[in-house]
Amino acid sequence: MNTLASLTGELALAREAVAGRLRGVDPDDIPAQRKAYDAFAENDPLPEGAGQSTIDLGGVSSLGVLPEGASGERVILWMHGGGYVVGSSVSHRGLGSQVAAAAGCAVVLPDYRLAPEHVYPAAIEDCVAVYHAVLAEGVAPEQIVLAGDSAGGALAVSTALRLKKEGAATPAGLMLLSPWVDLSCEGWSYDAKSRRDPFLTASSLQARAKQYLGAASHDDPGIDLLNADLRGLPPTIIQTGEAEVVLSDSTTLAERIGAAGAPVTLEIWPEMFHVFQARYPMLTQARQAITRLGAWAGAHLRS
Amino acid sequence: MNTLASLTGELALAREAVAGRLRGVDPDDIPAQRKAYDAFAENDPLPEGAGQSTIDLGGVSSLGVLPEGASGERVILWMHGGGYVVGSSVSHRGLGSQVAAAAGCAVVLPDYRLAPEHVYPAAIEDCVAVYHAVLAEGVAPEQIVLAGDSAGGALAVSTALRLKKEGAATPAGLMLLSPWVDLSCEGWSYDAKSRRDPFLTASSLQARAKQYLGAASHDDPGIDLLNADLRGLPPTIIQTGEAEVVLSDSTTLAERIGAAGAPVTLEIWPEMFHVFQARYPMLTQARQAITRLGAWAGAHLRS
Repeated sequence: MNTLASLTGELALAREAVAGRLRGVDPDDIPAQRKAYDAFAENDPLPEGAGQSTIDLGGVSSLGVLPEGASGERVILWMHGGGYVVGSSVSHRGLGSQVAAAAGCAVVLPDYRLAPEHVYPAAIEDCVAVYHAVLAEGVAPEQIVLAGDSAGGALAVSTALRLKKEGAATPAGLMLLSPWVDLSCEGWSYDAKSRRDPFLTASSLQARAKQYLGAASHDDPGIDLLNADLRGLPPTIIQTGEAEVVLSDSTTLAERIGAAGAPVTLEIWPEMFHVFQARYPMLTQARQAITRLGAWAGAHLRS
Repeated sequence: MNTLASLTGELALAREAVAGRLRGVDPDDIPAQRKAYDAFAENDPLPEGAGQSTIDLGGVSSLGVLPEGASGERVILWMHGGGYVVGSSVSHRGLGSQVAAAAGCAVVLPDYRLAPEHVYPAAIEDCVAVYHAVLAEGVAPEQIVLAGDSAGGALAVSTALRLKKEGAATPAGLMLLSPWVDLSCEGWSYDAKSRRDPFLTASSLQARAKQYLGAASHDDPGIDLLNADLRGLPPTIIQTGEAEVVLSDSTTLAERIGAAGAPVTLEIWPEMFHVFQARYPMLTQARQAITRLGAWAGAHLRS
């Protein structure tokens, strides 16, 4: 497990790269944080021959990427991570488009409003608006997978629950990478995995939660997804790393979505860190995980 | 979810069939219980053209089944369920051989010693002996998947932990169908799913636990797998039904095996009952689940 051997080679390099992403950047300088976060990933390769364009969807600027040979009528709607405060279509277009290529479909990455300027529920409202705008483009609900990593995983679930509340048709599936749904940061892994996680800590996440929540509480029924009514969600896949403090978010969410009646697949990847899939340019397991996500989405999206 | 529609057709028939399996049989007449349990499944079809033979492995009578065209050098070692008290190679040869056919390998089903005549740890000792005997036949550890359903799932995990303790090479994988590992029967689903489960109850399971434990306690370190040292286990897949009281055994076990460092896949199947895969002759989801188990085993067994 935590042996030297397991921390050498590409895994050590990937951990170090991600851990150093925001090092030396003033935590209180939000624009600088966002700039560094985007810069870290902006050159991650898109699938060869992929086309991209910025589009307005329901008033939300979004990036669409269509891998070569993929169907533009099937869409992964990807809510990017970044603790509700950083991250964008630029930081996540690589990851999103690689999963889309593996699935043989398009990906759409909304630049939903970020905290602290825009607190809960602004981001959720934006994601719901984008979903409806994608429908208005002629894509059927059965041709959409809602995806998200970290905070974006929570946004994907929240969006699906809003749609259910509205009586709207649910998408074909939910695809969640290391979803961060426990804004209290009190799950068992926040402490138990604190020495194995290369960059996330309960306190850094609590700071992000505070920025996002504004006047709301982490146990607000619209926020606390682990205790929400999760009935009516579509088939769900969750991938999580073993070496991350938000591991228990994934295991608990999988259990509760499954108990509420959706088909659930949970994958726990040994030694992997938070949203390890994004390091596909350098990490074998990231590419393996993306292949599996693509196969899952491809199998759940209607042609 | 619990709608009339979901309980009509083949699912309703499958639930009723399984629930009626031991109806009217005196619970205290163990031989009659075993006879009825075997009779229920003994005519479940083997894969067409499969050959079967009874073999002695380490002093334990076992049934080997080789599906047509499958490799006899790759083996699923299947610990049958039945609450440690009933069940046999006869009741489980259908299920085991169908998974083996899907994986393209052989299956071996040990008739380990049953309770109450033989209490803990007799069954585990038998399974360990069979594993070593399979190795002695020239099959490598990387060519063996340890599988088990219900109580057999716990036996598969216990066997792997014994092998680790001995310093023996671990098998290629663990394949667990609705594993029953919480002999206290106190997990959340024992109550929460009591109205959805067509035949298992906390009290019926507690009775089985009592027969198996003899003088041991359910929190004996050799029994309480949820609190055991689970490091060093091989890649693990767990399938569970949503409509069964032992659902929390699967979710908790998946979380703990994954947190301890093994690659884990957990699948939660909506509306499915305990070891629903065994009803493959009549239930679509059973056949789908078997296909997935076979693909997983095939991918993890060394050629």
